[in-house]
Amino acid sequence: MKESSREKLRRRKPRRKLEREKNSKQKKKKKTPELALSSSLALSPAFDAAPSPLPPLHCPNTHLLFLSSLFINPPPLPPQGGDGYCGFATALHLSARGYAVAIVDNLARRSYDAQLGMETLTPIASAHERVKTWNGISGKDIELMIGDVCDFEFLSAAFQSFKPDAVVHFGEQRSAPYSMIDRARAVYTQHNNVIGTVNVLFAIKEFAPEAHLVKLGTMGEYGTPNIDIEEGFITITHNGRTDTLPYPKQGGSFYHLSKVHDSHNIHFATKAWKLAATDLNQGVVYGVATEETTAHPKLVNRYDYDGIFGTALNRFVVQAAVGHPLTVYGKGGQTRGYLDIRDTVRCVQLAIDSPAAPGEFRVFNQFTEQFSVNQLAEIVGSEGRKLGLDVRVQSVPNPRVELEEHYYNARHSKLQELGLEPHLLGDNIVDSLLKFAIQYKDRVNLELIKPAVDWRKAGAAPRVESAAVASRK
Amino acid sequence: MKESSREKLRRRKPRRKLEREKNSKQKKKKKTPELALSSSLALSPAFDAAPSPLPPLHCPNTHLLFLSSLFINPPPLPPQGGDGYCGFATALHLSARGYAVAIVDNLARRSYDAQLGMETLTPIASAHERVKTWNGISGKDIELMIGDVCDFEFLSAAFQSFKPDAVVHFGEQRSAPYSMIDRARAVYTQHNNVIGTVNVLFAIKEFAPEAHLVKLGTMGEYGTPNIDIEEGFITITHNGRTDTLPYPKQGGSFYHLSKVHDSHNIHFATKAWKLAATDLNQGVVYGVATEETTAHPKLVNRYDYDGIFGTALNRFVVQAAVGHPLTVYGKGGQTRGYLDIRDTVRCVQLAIDSPAAPGEFRVFNQFTEQFSVNQLAEIVGSEGRKLGLDVRVQSVPNPRVELEEHYYNARHSKLQELGLEPHLLGDNIVDSLLKFAIQYKDRVNLELIKPAVDWRKAGAAPRVESAAVASRK
Repeated sequence: MKESSREKLRRRKPRRKLEREKNSKQKKKKKTPELALSSSLALSPAFDAAPSPLPPLHCPNTHLLFLSSLFINPPPLPPQGGDGYCGFATALHLSARGYAVAIVDNLARRSYDAQLGMETLTPIASAHERVKTWNGISGKDIELMIGDVCDFEFLSAAFQSFKPDAVVHFGEQRSAPYSMIDRARAVYTQHNNVIGTVNVLFAIKEFAPEAHLVKLGTMGEYGTPNIDIEEGFITITHNGRTDTLPYPKQGGSFYHLSKVHDSHNIHFATKAWKLAATDLNQGVVYGVATEETTAHPKLVNRYDYDGIFGTALNRFVVQAAVGHPLTVYGKGGQTRGYLDIRDTVRCVQLAIDSPAAPGEFRVFNQFTEQFSVNQLAEIVGSEGRKLGLDVRVQSVPNPRVELEEHYYNARHSKLQELGLEPHLLGDNIVDSLLKFAIQYKDRVNLELIKPAVDWRKAGAAPRVESAAVASRK
Repeated sequence: MKESSREKLRRRKPRRKLEREKNSKQKKKKKTPELALSSSLALSPAFDAAPSPLPPLHCPNTHLLFLSSLFINPPPLPPQGGDGYCGFATALHLSARGYAVAIVDNLARRSYDAQLGMETLTPIASAHERVKTWNGISGKDIELMIGDVCDFEFLSAAFQSFKPDAVVHFGEQRSAPYSMIDRARAVYTQHNNVIGTVNVLFAIKEFAPEAHLVKLGTMGEYGTPNIDIEEGFITITHNGRTDTLPYPKQGGSFYHLSKVHDSHNIHFATKAWKLAATDLNQGVVYGVATEETTAHPKLVNRYDYDGIFGTALNRFVVQAAVGHPLTVYGKGGQTRGYLDIRDTVRCVQLAIDSPAAPGEFRVFNQFTEQFSVNQLAEIVGSEGRKLGLDVRVQSVPNPRVELEEHYYNARHSKLQELGLEPHLLGDNIVDSLLKFAIQYKDRVNLELIKPAVDWRKAGAAPRVESAAVASRK
């Protein structure tokens, strides 16, 4: 399967890329050893340990462009969004496996923290230090391009210099609560995400028409319909006729809606311009460490536990670690798809290795298991108590507008058909995460831990105080 | 029906508005005579005729705010988008019927013409002259607020000064080909339309939470699915469960997609903030004159026949008038919903008079009949030949990416249930339109008449030449 999909990827490559690849192989010979993936990608408390050399790797010859995130090439591609929680781990994962990676990032994620007076649980190094550290210990050569996908002049230059074979687009504002702080943040989120993606589509069309777009969407695009959720499309029989149509979308925040808009725009571009695109409708990610981010203290990944960027499981773990009640929003019956960050990075690789066909808009639901918020609280409570933590659960008024008890059954088989072997949420991972959070618990700011943004109160006027601190009443 | 819906409207009004209304009634008594709608709204070649006094009118006491277009109040509301083809006719229609109307418009529609080197078939007066003329002959008092819905400071001021009871939002870039000229116009269209509408939602939430949003969408949001098109929502039974979900959307240009995005954003705002909204998914409008626009030469409506803003039937009529072959794109089997502009203005009024409930997102398919492009060409050909015109049909390569032969059956019963009595496309209207076009045929620029924008060629680089003139090869 893997072999044939790589061959398929190769068939898509234009002649100039094959030539470049040949040159690149000659130049970089020393950097493309055999792949020997460690089968245990366990969370390692390696942040204080000495830098460990990485295993030798196989080079799939793909250029990846990460957008605020990343680009990828076989061998050289840039990605965008490579400095964030998922983007950074993914960029390293792909670089480690021999993909040529360029990270395109405006570092906006760091500026949100600065503006809101927040900090990740983990002390992350600067983007420049991270890339330098990675290149140093891995012998790889990730390019870091600082700039904004909404700036098309910059984006054009990035595409023209890197010539991506795949474009991994993580370059978006990714917090639902952030988008609901006030009008200015709602507008920022929709503008940044939607226009950024329109720019990426035009850049691919103009500069890399055969590049495969791998775009990070969200399971939140579907909302919580009272029928099974399919992967992107649904076959509907209506008044005696049948068609397969885009699955109806019901985004629950201006952030989720921005991803809905992206999906519609990308779908159109695949039809109008024969672009190849994969939309990864990702569930809620938990965990923090991957094989690469634990390879050196300066590669530690960010870990958000605050009421704006912190997502359910990661937030509960920190709350348990510091003795704060787990804040369940409303009844806690909200059910969503979840996945381990080690599966996130692997899913992106699987999508790149088996690209969509020209003109194809392919949607994968990228999660491995469903949980309700109450189930997560229960798991964290039970594991926490084994470690002697006093874990309580507190129901707080739901700051979101969402169903708190509902049917939820979402299909997620396409990535597993491509070879994903899920890391399921066992006792082991929650135990590791709790120990990890305890290690950093002195860095926790309790003021940040409560819900800070109420959907119903999103104001037209700019919220001038720090949104996070504003949660203290 | 009408009575009870007006009563419903009244029930929604906050006390301060009822008071304002009372004051307003006292002040404006002379301006609110009985309604006596002419039953024949025939196209009148009245542009050279002396200004005719309007029939006396009934005052429904609604403030309308037209956004680049309009706002409405009972009695005083502002609308937005009141200077364009549909917006202007609608603003006058409502003003004539006693709604207090303010037009909010940045006059962008006129600047597109200037930029692209085009002119409407009809010599339209300036926005200021139009409003002054209307107020002079009608004894009404339309307010004209020049500004941009994307400028929230301005929009806030407009809302606060006018205090709308209904907001009619026509304030968007409305041409699919314009949005496909190049990246800059695609980005402009999505930014202007999506962010403008987000601003309108926040303005309503903040300054007029009980105002009813009447938003102009498009039938093009649905694309051409192989099943019947419903009005906004579809009941789907899937794997033994059933839910009613937003109808799947497949916009066929960055313009159509901007309306898809708007619909999703508005739907969310109705749920999160309990706003009341009606999305009018309008078909292709034809015709030019309404009872009000023919009341004075300076009130003549715009008539677009060019390859960018001209829509199918209106364009064919001008082509027939000047002896240019009717340019059918591809096979001509493209089927869409159509309506007379006299029904457009009436539909908006019907939506205002029976507002959506708080929290309701209501979708009306606003068209009266379906035609294929070939059917339209046939009708225009047959009517043209009766007038001695030499009407030929020429199939040109389709500049759009769309199905040219497809199933199409779209429901459109909700507006008729509210009382719409359609003006169907009979010989009479085509004959009138042809005579109208002949009257102005010396103003036709033949260079503008061909398709000017190819979907497949939308470039990343700005198209610096006039897009219209560029169609000459």
